[in-house]
Amino acid sequence: MGDDPAGLGHKAYRALLEPMQEELSGVARWAASTGARVLVLFEGRDTSGKTGVIHAISEKLNPRQVRTVALHTPSAREAGQWYFQRYVAQLPTAGEVVLFDRSWYNRAGVEAVMGFANPAQVQAMLAATPAFERLLVDDGLLLFKYWLCCDQAEQERRFAERRDDPFKRWKLSDIDLAARQHYDDYTCAREAMLTATHTAHAPWTLVDFNDQKRGRLTLIRDLLDRLPSTEVTVAPLDLPPLHHHAAREHYGLIAPLPPFDGQPRARRG
Amino acid sequence: MGDDPAGLGHKAYRALLEPMQEELSGVARWAASTGARVLVLFEGRDTSGKTGVIHAISEKLNPRQVRTVALHTPSAREAGQWYFQRYVAQLPTAGEVVLFDRSWYNRAGVEAVMGFANPAQVQAMLAATPAFERLLVDDGLLLFKYWLCCDQAEQERRFAERRDDPFKRWKLSDIDLAARQHYDDYTCAREAMLTATHTAHAPWTLVDFNDQKRGRLTLIRDLLDRLPSTEVTVAPLDLPPLHHHAAREHYGLIAPLPPFDGQPRARRG
Amino acid sequence: MGDDPAGLGHKAYRALLEPMQEELSGVARWAASTGARVLVLFEGRDTSGKTGVIHAISEKLNPRQVRTVALHTPSAREAGQWYFQRYVAQLPTAGEVVLFDRSWYNRAGVEAVMGFANPAQVQAMLAATPAFERLLVDDGLLLFKYWLCCDQAEQERRFAERRDDPFKRWKLSDIDLAARQHYDDYTCAREAMLTATHTAHAPWTLVDFNDQKRGRLTLIRDLLDRLPSTEVTVAPLDLPPLHHHAAREHYGLIAPLPPFDGQPRARRG
Amino acid sequence: MGDDPAGLGHKAYRALLEPMQEELSGVARWAASTGARVLVLFEGRDTSGKTGVIHAISEKLNPRQVRTVALHTPSAREAGQWYFQRYVAQLPTAGEVVLFDRSWYNRAGVEAVMGFANPAQVQAMLAATPAFERLLVDDGLLLFKYWLCCDQAEQERRFAERRDDPFKRWKLSDIDLAARQHYDDYTCAREAMLTATHTAHAPWTLVDFNDQKRGRLTLIRDLLDRLPSTEVTVAPLDLPPLHHHAAREHYGLIAPLPPFDGQPRARRG
Repeated sequence: MGDDPAGLGHKAYRALLEPMQEELSGVARWAASTGARVLVLFEGRDTSGKTGVIHAISEKLNPRQVRTVALHTPSAREAGQWYFQRYVAQLPTAGEVVLFDRSWYNRAGVEAVMGFANPAQVQAMLAATPAFERLLVDDGLLLFKYWLCCDQAEQERRFAERRDDPFKRWKLSDIDLAARQHYDDYTCAREAMLTATHTAHAPWTLVDFNDQKRGRLTLIRDLLDRLPSTEVTVAPLDLPPLHHHAAREHYGLIAPLPPFDGQPRARRG
Repeated sequence: MGDDPAGLGHKAYRALLEPMQEELSGVARWAASTGARVLVLFEGRDTSGKTGVIHAISEKLNPRQVRTVALHTPSAREAGQWYFQRYVAQLPTAGEVVLFDRSWYNRAGVEAVMGFANPAQVQAMLAATPAFERLLVDDGLLLFKYWLCCDQAEQERRFAERRDDPFKRWKLSDIDLAARQHYDDYTCAREAMLTATHTAHAPWTLVDFNDQKRGRLTLIRDLLDRLPSTEVTVAPLDLPPLHHHAAREHYGLIAPLPPFDGQPRARRG
Repeated sequence: MGDDPAGLGHKAYRALLEPMQEELSGVARWAASTGARVLVLFEGRDTSGKTGVIHAISEKLNPRQVRTVALHTPSAREAGQWYFQRYVAQLPTAGEVVLFDRSWYNRAGVEAVMGFANPAQVQAMLAATPAFERLLVDDGLLLFKYWLCCDQAEQERRFAERRDDPFKRWKLSDIDLAARQHYDDYTCAREAMLTATHTAHAPWTLVDFNDQKRGRLTLIRDLLDRLPSTEVTVAPLDLPPLHHHAAREHYGLIAPLPPFDGQPRARRG
Repeated sequence: MGDDPAGLGHKAYRALLEPMQEELSGVARWAASTGARVLVLFEGRDTSGKTGVIHAISEKLNPRQVRTVALHTPSAREAGQWYFQRYVAQLPTAGEVVLFDRSWYNRAGVEAVMGFANPAQVQAMLAATPAFERLLVDDGLLLFKYWLCCDQAEQERRFAERRDDPFKRWKLSDIDLAARQHYDDYTCAREAMLTATHTAHAPWTLVDFNDQKRGRLTLIRDLLDRLPSTEVTVAPLDLPPLHHHAAREHYGLIAPLPPFDGQPRARRG
């Protein structure tokens, strides 16, 4: 991680991130104007920072154009369907950018390691995936696949933080804890996944997220560099002056709340 | 707005926001453990800051539990359905928190003012809404309705900013521009909406968003104060030490990207 | 059942049914041309004949316009939602006719009698339903609610038939069998349902299905009589003669199957 | 069609059909017990009889297990998606039998001939389909593809019948009429489709539907012969006698309709 990446402070981080967010805004504008479909998959270790990087990408974008998809455990009906079916339902339409917080690779990761899928199911999914992704890519979908890396010592540190901070406890599931004994199994599962699905038409990209801020910048920079040129000429736009004084809010039935005064409240309890 | 709220700097804002985000995390934990369903509607002027406050609420929460819903223009099939149908499809299930960026009140706002719905449709929707919301509330759904206020001078300032900043241009639609001539019509439409739908079982809350940071804090504080007590005892959780050295990532097929070096890139063009 | 309705033979039944099916075709044409939405709920005793009458109605109609809805047991997500939500998703859009094989009244029938819902849930559903249906009716939906009646002796006869005929066994569930001890409880549950939900805006109609053919004719006649006048003038339509000899199929890669010769096959085993 | 197939009267037809419907019932029972997924695609000439054969198949089966899918024209959002997406959403889950009244082959038929899709789109769809179907078949889905044949003279006769019979007019669209000039183009399009998509893993079957009754019997016989052995042992099932007299319906709030008396009604108008 070079010369003290942990030292990248909030301010420095934002200063590097924000120009990239502007570029992302340009990507979104380009997708809207061309009808491009962009799908980005985020996979990786527990605690590696999938949710955070997705937030950094979507934060400034139009929520009607950019969707995050974080599917639940399948229902019984879904479990009986074609494995890819519930993911297909979430693919982007023309002009959309969709971010998958976990994806069809679930089966090759947590399901494989924790035994929620049997080896035949895992093999079948790995064998089918290149053809499935080929169909999407041949159809013009722009597909990006990122795997976020994190050493176990750092992962342990984050688990402890989640344990100790009640407001991060939702991030800590029983499966996460059980997974602690399987760090190397996840590594093996990842390598099997790469071997089967790192293809010319849909390659994987690994990003080191031992430093989350640095990881986000690295990932977003890579994503931007791989997207087609996205300069869309924006027609100049006229805002002629109003022909009247600017109006003010006025209230009949109910008035706004008094503004928050900055005083902490007693916690409800 | 008191003694210079515009002066609320980023750091002071975050210092006030973050404890509230922690409380929101508690709300989410409580909803998950009790199966409560929470629905928050965000309506208000163009530029008032709906997307921003939704982001501030959801930023630290589990994306598998907290959903933002920003519906598109209805398709022809949807336009032929019961007016509330496509919104009903997005209501929270047990344990979910759902944030509506615009809602069924669209018809009483932009559709009424800009003529996308005729007066009879607007009246029918306003007449039906209290009974519809009553059904939801009687079913146990926790419903909150916020309307974000903004004076026209401030709105004009924000329109100009969106015009001038290419990365905010997506926020500026033709309808927004046409709406500039209708500021007072929106006020009238809002008052008609309040008269028809500010009910005991589903009251409205107005929040002044002339200062967006202050507005967010005011709204979130109000939301937190109105939610039931949310203290959920969190069982202590054990992270026994690993029985081996913490493992490290090691890579076979492909290695991670080199970390971002902080150098700006030439813009693609 | 009067003077030997059981004597209504297949031919006589079809001769009475087919003109009604033609009228139904007129209703569908009228709905398509006016954008009317028609929803018909079918409830009633097990074995009473819901599926059969729905078939008689839909048999000759356009499957792109007339949908039958027979929902499954709710998934866990659905069970946590607003009770009416999964039914709302199936309501007709403009121009559609939708036939519900069981409906939101499930909770007042089998769920109440067999204890799948507790009394408070049943009461809540019964209390909410008139307001829910009022919303739909006020929105212009044409709602019809039929309950199919059948005495227990006839029901027993049909259960025995289903038991003995392997090809009707799918119609016989464990719940059906358990329900045999609860015939009178179903009667009570039906009366409670009628008391709560037989309203001026959404009245119930009971139809005697001890004779299924007679029951179908009675129900469909009633439905037709209650629909608005449905005469839609059909523009005369020209089929100018072809300017060439009528072409014939000709086959390159593969030829059609030889036609079925009417010989029974050995059953596969 | 041998010695006067047109002479296959209703009674003889039903006598041949009903044993096949019993076998279909066995197929459904087998699918339910094994979790098999069965998908049957019906394509073919306008008027060839897709809807009729689907009805003959589904008539006696459990509507909660056997679904017919007849998709509408895609919405704008759907048109922007991966071409197969809206079909994927309708694939069978474990234990289901799904019947597609038209399918993804629409693009290779009416869309290609009538110019609703351009040649590049048609080629892309034809090129993608074998891989798409391979994924489904490798996943264990049982896929059957039928194309229904009909000579133009017979098609003309049916068009005239639809024109003259007001109750069949819904079956006659402007596109159908325009298609009369394109009979041979449809033949060419079908041959191109067969060349591209008649594969070992998902072969086509053509069935002559110049005689609809014979066509149905031929198709259903073929389908049954190609399904795996479907004998499921049905556990004997006990219906112990009731411990009381069989109860009768009795009515409080409202009584059933008087039974239909067989008298024709004046047409509403």
